Amino acid sequence: MKEWFTLLAEYVPDLPSDVYGEGEYMQAFEKEIADLLGHEAAVFMPSGTMAQQIALRIWAESRQNFSVAMHPLSHLDTAEHFSYQFIHNLKRIQFGIPEFGDRLLTTKDFQNLKETPGSILLELPQRFLGGYLPPWEDLQVTVQWARDHDIPIHLDGARLWESQPYYSEKSLADIASLFDSVYVSFYKGLGGITGSMLLGPQSFIEEAKVWLRRMGGNLRAQFSFVASAKWGVENNLPKMQQYHERAKALAKIINTFPNFSTSPQVPHTNMFLIFLPGDPAKVKSILLEASRECGVFFFGGLRASQHPQYSFFEVNILNQGLDLDLEKFKELMQVLADKLV
Amino acid sequence: MKEWFTLLAEYVPDLPSDVYGEGEYMQAFEKEIADLLGHEAAVFMPSGTMAQQIALRIWAESRQNFSVAMHPLSHLDTAEHFSYQFIHNLKRIQFGIPEFGDRLLTTKDFQNLKETPGSILLELPQRFLGGYLPPWEDLQVTVQWARDHDIPIHLDGARLWESQPYYSEKSLADIASLFDSVYVSFYKGLGGITGSMLLGPQSFIEEAKVWLRRMGGNLRAQFSFVASAKWGVENNLPKMQQYHERAKALAKIINTFPNFSTSPQVPHTNMFLIFLPGDPAKVKSILLEASRECGVFFFGGLRASQHPQYSFFEVNILNQGLDLDLEKFKELMQVLADKLV
Repeated sequence: MKEWFTLLAEYVPDLPSDVYGEGEYMQAFEKEIADLLGHEAAVFMPSGTMAQQIALRIWAESRQNFSVAMHPLSHLDTAEHFSYQFIHNLKRIQFGIPEFGDRLLTTKDFQNLKETPGSILLELPQRFLGGYLPPWEDLQVTVQWARDHDIPIHLDGARLWESQPYYSEKSLADIASLFDSVYVSFYKGLGGITGSMLLGPQSFIEEAKVWLRRMGGNLRAQFSFVASAKWGVENNLPKMQQYHERAKALAKIINTFPNFSTSPQVPHTNMFLIFLPGDPAKVKSILLEASRECGVFFFGGLRASQHPQYSFFEVNILNQGLDLDLEKFKELMQVLADKLV
Repeated sequence: MKEWFTLLAEYVPDLPSDVYGEGEYMQAFEKEIADLLGHEAAVFMPSGTMAQQIALRIWAESRQNFSVAMHPLSHLDTAEHFSYQFIHNLKRIQFGIPEFGDRLLTTKDFQNLKETPGSILLELPQRFLGGYLPPWEDLQVTVQWARDHDIPIHLDGARLWESQPYYSEKSLADIASLFDSVYVSFYKGLGGITGSMLLGPQSFIEEAKVWLRRMGGNLRAQFSFVASAKWGVENNLPKMQQYHERAKALAKIINTFPNFSTSPQVPHTNMFLIFLPGDPAKVKSILLEASRECGVFFFGGLRASQHPQYSFFEVNILNQGLDLDLEKFKELMQVLADKLV
């Protein structure tokens, strides 16, 4: 807490607080991000949960179609207590029977739907799979299919910043402007306190502000979130390429051990899943032991994998990951390999 | 912005940020307010809009009755784009045909309802009327009526802190514990950045946390709001009596001028409405002129009143009001009286 307040006291200009979403500092930041992502308008919001529900609700109302085509592992279907159903009466369309959430959706999946969804939500990268991204061409085709069928297509860009290096010749605006609406987060890769932004056409954003008020997100003041978000864009956005390179370097080391794997094998972003042999309790205790021995803390929320002999956890490479000594990391992996036999 | 960050950098203890609602600093503050208000449990939330919708939704689900008895001037019916209808399918029961919102609700109003509401929301004080409070005995009777009919009764306590002096022998806990659930705000009288708290029985609060997640209010970190709220409780809560006294003193001065009135005539809290002769545009320009002449800034959002010859605005007495020189204020009123002929 103290560090943040001290940093931000220095960082912010001599401007007054925003008041219920209005304020020079906030609006300038909204414009900055709208320009960066190639969208007409933007509104800062306290959370992505709010931003995405609002986007889907607006699209549903505009088409009078409350069905949504989104991945079964989307944030809305895994991390929001099904709010989209409980408070918006939205319904997810099932992809196939039975439905598996073990890979990215492709254009074919949308083509095979037997009904027309009110909207599509795509998450780039697909976080719970390990941060997979579709090839640029596939993305184009999916978006074109949505356009051809007049289906609004929304981007869950919680980790959009982290995705750009994968599409190396494409800018953030090239990616984001494919979509009718976009949500981005300021606290994951960017390291802000919290906060999100919803982007889209001006009229869409005006309507989003009504829904933001309804959801209880039109706060008296958000300058602490806004300032930390702006600080994150300035300080951490330029490092996304480095985070990605470092994730690839670590995954490469991990994959040299016969019984260790990452997914993706070559990370698409700064994140990946690491699979280690053993049940979560065993792997956890050995990981802790090895981390202490080597003085390198490499850890996450261990979970049982589908394969009965493996556990896994999610790895996100940020500033601490850049500071990691690769030789030390190799040593840790070796100690781990020796212990996890 | 800078002032807040500088103040809070000094103010906060050396503790880490809360993470998605969990954190020593946050939980200690929740407990502090729960104890102060005589409730079992509490959860900090970004906004009151969220807190109150959540309370009403939980009570509605628990009784499988989505009707609510609340004043037509409640915050939910005036300031939230009817979110209670749009996202929770709640419905307000009409008090009388035609219905007038020009006075406080009494027990009789509830008794005269021809159906049993799923919940009752009482606002103390009734802000849009000018901050009126019911006598303590009436309040008791209304609450008892709700109890007798097994109707959960929720307190909109956005200005509960400001109400306590009116019930001078009653503590905040005496007032708040009359209700099944209570919302309080930290940025109005208390002067925090933003934020609210919802209080009630433990199981109610556990359920509220699920709904908070659904509403997008389970933020990654709220320490900036929490710290400012705690600071407000420490620094401004002890001044509520002074604010009230000062509001009464100012109203008394105002009411000595034959064509000026306040409502209530003797303020119940630190707020009141002031009625001045003339249309809003005229009164506004004369008020500005007189304020500049006297060097006393006394102003608000002027609106036309029901009476065609009067305009009014809302006055809230906080620290600036305490600093106001009463002689200077009399002078301002005199200048105003001379100009507003």
